[in-house]
Amino acid sequence: MLRDYNLGEVNEKLVGKKIRLCGWVDVIREHGKVIFLNLRDRYGKIQSVIVKSNDDFDKAKRLTRESCVLVEGEVNKRPKGTENKDMESGKVELFINKLDVLSECKPLPFEINEDIENEDLRLKYRFLDLRSSRMQKNLILRSDTLRAVRDFFHDEKFVEVETPILAKSTPEGARDYIVPSRNFKGKFYALPQSPQLFKQLSQVAGLDRYVQIARCFRDEDLRSDRQPEFTQVDVEMSFIEQDDIIEVIEKMLAYVFKKALNVEIKTPFKRISYDEAMKEYGNDAPDLRKDKTNKNEFAFCWVVDFPLFEYSKEDKRHKSVHHPFTMPKVGKNKLDFNDKSKSVAYDVVLNGVEIGGGSVRIHDSEIQEKIFDILKISKREARDKFGFLLDALSFGAPPHGGIALGFDRLIQIMAGEDSIREVIAYPKNKEARDVMLDAPSEVDGKQLKEVGVGVEKKKGGKKK
Amino acid sequence: MLRDYNLGEVNEKLVGKKIRLCGWVDVIREHGKVIFLNLRDRYGKIQSVIVKSNDDFDKAKRLTRESCVLVEGEVNKRPKGTENKDMESGKVELFINKLDVLSECKPLPFEINEDIENEDLRLKYRFLDLRSSRMQKNLILRSDTLRAVRDFFHDEKFVEVETPILAKSTPEGARDYIVPSRNFKGKFYALPQSPQLFKQLSQVAGLDRYVQIARCFRDEDLRSDRQPEFTQVDVEMSFIEQDDIIEVIEKMLAYVFKKALNVEIKTPFKRISYDEAMKEYGNDAPDLRKDKTNKNEFAFCWVVDFPLFEYSKEDKRHKSVHHPFTMPKVGKNKLDFNDKSKSVAYDVVLNGVEIGGGSVRIHDSEIQEKIFDILKISKREARDKFGFLLDALSFGAPPHGGIALGFDRLIQIMAGEDSIREVIAYPKNKEARDVMLDAPSEVDGKQLKEVGVGVEKKKGGKKK
Repeated sequence: MLRDYNLGEVNEKLVGKKIRLCGWVDVIREHGKVIFLNLRDRYGKIQSVIVKSNDDFDKAKRLTRESCVLVEGEVNKRPKGTENKDMESGKVELFINKLDVLSECKPLPFEINEDIENEDLRLKYRFLDLRSSRMQKNLILRSDTLRAVRDFFHDEKFVEVETPILAKSTPEGARDYIVPSRNFKGKFYALPQSPQLFKQLSQVAGLDRYVQIARCFRDEDLRSDRQPEFTQVDVEMSFIEQDDIIEVIEKMLAYVFKKALNVEIKTPFKRISYDEAMKEYGNDAPDLRKDKTNKNEFAFCWVVDFPLFEYSKEDKRHKSVHHPFTMPKVGKNKLDFNDKSKSVAYDVVLNGVEIGGGSVRIHDSEIQEKIFDILKISKREARDKFGFLLDALSFGAPPHGGIALGFDRLIQIMAGEDSIREVIAYPKNKEARDVMLDAPSEVDGKQLKEVGVGVEKKKGGKKK
Repeated sequence: MLRDYNLGEVNEKLVGKKIRLCGWVDVIREHGKVIFLNLRDRYGKIQSVIVKSNDDFDKAKRLTRESCVLVEGEVNKRPKGTENKDMESGKVELFINKLDVLSECKPLPFEINEDIENEDLRLKYRFLDLRSSRMQKNLILRSDTLRAVRDFFHDEKFVEVETPILAKSTPEGARDYIVPSRNFKGKFYALPQSPQLFKQLSQVAGLDRYVQIARCFRDEDLRSDRQPEFTQVDVEMSFIEQDDIIEVIEKMLAYVFKKALNVEIKTPFKRISYDEAMKEYGNDAPDLRKDKTNKNEFAFCWVVDFPLFEYSKEDKRHKSVHHPFTMPKVGKNKLDFNDKSKSVAYDVVLNGVEIGGGSVRIHDSEIQEKIFDILKISKREARDKFGFLLDALSFGAPPHGGIALGFDRLIQIMAGEDSIREVIAYPKNKEARDVMLDAPSEVDGKQLKEVGVGVEKKKGGKKK
C-alpha cells in the first residue's frame, strides 16, 4: 500500500507517529510561509501543513485542487484554539516532510460538492461528480443495502440464481431491447424486462426460494423516474399463499432499514384494498405519511385485491392487469371467477410510491384455460405466445408466487433524493444517452455486416 | 404456507405429530394394499405411505412420478428392520391421511438423476434437469459462494458498484454484442466485455475499493468452456501495488473455500514468473497438483511478470499483451522500459486453469505516452480510441490496479465439473443458443422498424 492509513483512521492516537497518507486536495490555503492542504478520501478529511523550508514547498504551491497526493510526515496535535470541531480529525494535523504529487488535476468543469444545475455536465464528468460527499454517501448506502438485502434472503435459505441477460423477445409488455445474433443471422436475443420467466421456471425446478438482484431492461419512452436499465430485487417462492410473501418482504424491509439506515420499521404494514385506496385516496399508491414532505418518515402499506382484468376499448376485449398467469381470487370452487374478479396480486407502497408488486401465479391448467378464454386468447395463440411456460407448468409445477421490488427507487427514497439518477453510479440521461461514454454511438460497418443487419436510411433528414 | 416443514426438517423429533408436507414424487412403489410414495424437495427426501382404506388411495394409484403433491398425516417411526440408513429421514415415514395432487407431471423426456448424453435435451427441459441432486448441489454451491465472496469484500470495506450493461462498443478485444437504439436511430449500445472502464473510473471517483460480481459479454466463436455471457468477480483498488491485490485475493479465496466447501487453502500461493512457467511447464497456467486427476485437490499459484508487448507479424507492430493501460515494470526512472519489458500483470491459476487476471494500471501520462509510441498509436488515434479514459486520468487519478476472476470457471472447479454449463442455471448451448427459450429468434418487423435496422438478405441460401 502507498498509504499507512485512510483518512478516516487518523486521530489523536497517532500523535507523534510518522505516517504516509493519500488523498485528494480538497482545499489549499496559502499563508505566506505555510501552506495548509486539506486532503479528502471517502473515509474522511485531514489537514496537512507544509512549511517554506521544506524542499517540496514549491510543489505544494503549484498544486491544483482535486489533484491526488501522497504526504509523509508526523501527526501533530493542533495548537490550542485551532481545532476544527467539524472534522473528525479536527484535533490533529499532519506536518509534511515529503509531498508526492501522484497525479495532477487539470481545471475542473465544476466545483465538487456544489449544486450544479446542468445535469448532463455532471453526468459527462461523472467520475468527478461521484467525488462529492452526497454521491459517495448515496453509493455507499446503496452498497450497504445490497448487502443487507442479500444477507437477509441467504439467511432465510433463499437460493441466489443468476439468470440470462441474453434472453428472448416477449410479445407483450414494454418494448424489448434486441441484440442481433452473429451465429444465427436474422435472429435476435432480447434483454429481459424482468427474470419473470426464469424465476417461475426455477420454481418448477424445485428451487423453492429464489432470489436475485437482477438487471432489467425496458425500452420505454423516458420519464424522469425511469431508466432504460434498472435493478430489481426479485423473489419467488413455492408452496406459499399471499400472506407468506407479504410476511417475508416486511421482515426483509425491516431488516434492511435497520441495517442500512438504523431506522426501525413497524410491521405488519397496513393493508388497503385496491377499491378502498381508489375511493379513499384517489390512487392505488397512497402516501400515508403524517407529513407528506418529510423525507425521514417512512410509511409503508400494501395495496391488495387488484382487479384481474381491465377492459380495453381499443382492442374490444379484456386484458390482464398484471399478466395472464396471475391467480384469480376464487370462491369455493377453483373456477368460481369471472371478468369482474379480483386477483391475488399485491403492491408494496412507500411514501406514495409503488416500490414493488407481485402475485400468486396460476399453476393449474383449468384455471389458466379459463383465463385465456376470458382474454379471448385461442389455444393456438396461447401456445405461440406462452408455449414454453405452459409446457413447464405441465411437469409438476408447485404452487408459487413472488414479487419484484424496484431497487433504484427504494434507495432513492432511503437516501431522500428526488431522482433515481442520484443513486445510480453511471445512469443514462433523460434521453437514454450515456453522456460520459457517448453511448449509443455509431458502430463500424464490419460489425454490422458480421451480425447481418443494416441501418435503415433515414427519410428526409431528422428522426421524428 | 401449504407445508409445515420442508423435507429436510422431518425426523424422529416429529414422531406422533400431524403435519403437512409438500414435494415431488421421487419414487412410487405399489405393494397391493399399500403404496409407498418417496417425496423429494431440495432439502431432503421422505417416505410416505398410504393404505387402501384411505379415500385418496386411488389418487395415489394414478400418480405419475415428478408430480407435485401435498400430503397430510402423522409422522411414524418405521417398523424395526425397515429403516433406511441412506436417507436422513430414514427412521421415520409419514402415514398419509390426505393426499392432494398439486400438479401432475406428464411423461418425462428423461429420467431425473440419470446421466443423459444429449445435452441439448437436458437444456431444453432445464427446469427438469435442475431437479437432479447434482444440479441442485451445484446451484446451491454457486449461491453460497456468491454470498461468501460478497461478504468478504464488504467486510474489507469494498463498495459494491453496479455498472451499466447498456454501454459502448470498444474498438479492440473480442467482438461486442450490439443493441440498436430506438431514440437514436443508426446508433448502438454495446454490452460490456467487462466493466474495466467503469471500475477504473470508480477509482478516479475516489471509491478506492470497488467490487462487483458482474455479467460480461463476448461474442466469440464458442469453445466448450466459453459462454456468450459469463460472470466475473471484478475488483479494483487505489493506492496499491501488485502485492496488495495478490494478498487480498488470496485471503478472499481462502475465506470462500472455507465457507463454501469447508476446505483449508494454504496461503501465500506460489509465485512463478511467466518465463519460468513457460520454461518449466511449457505453458502459462501450470497445474501444480500432485495428482493431476484429483478433483478434490486445489493447487493455486500466481503467474507474474508477463511480457508487456507481443509482436504482431500480421500488423507489423507491437501489441499489448494485456491492454495498453497496463503498468510496465520500470527501472529506477519511470520511463526505464522498452518493447522487451515485463508488465505489472498477474494471473491466478487453479489446477492448471487461469481463473483470474489483472494488472496495475498506468495513471501517469508520460508513461502512457511512451506506451502509445511503442504501440505506434498516434495522439489522434489514442484520443479517438481511448479519449474518454485519458480524459479521466487527467483529473487527479490515483495509482490503481485490479483483477477479474472468472466466477463460472471457479465454481466449475470447486464443484468438480467438466463444463461451466453444469454450474450455470440457464446456459446457452455450444452454438450460443438457448434451446429452452429458443433464443435467438426472429422478431417482428415492427420491432425492427422502431429501432431502424433491417435484416440483410442472405445471398444464396444458408449462412456460411
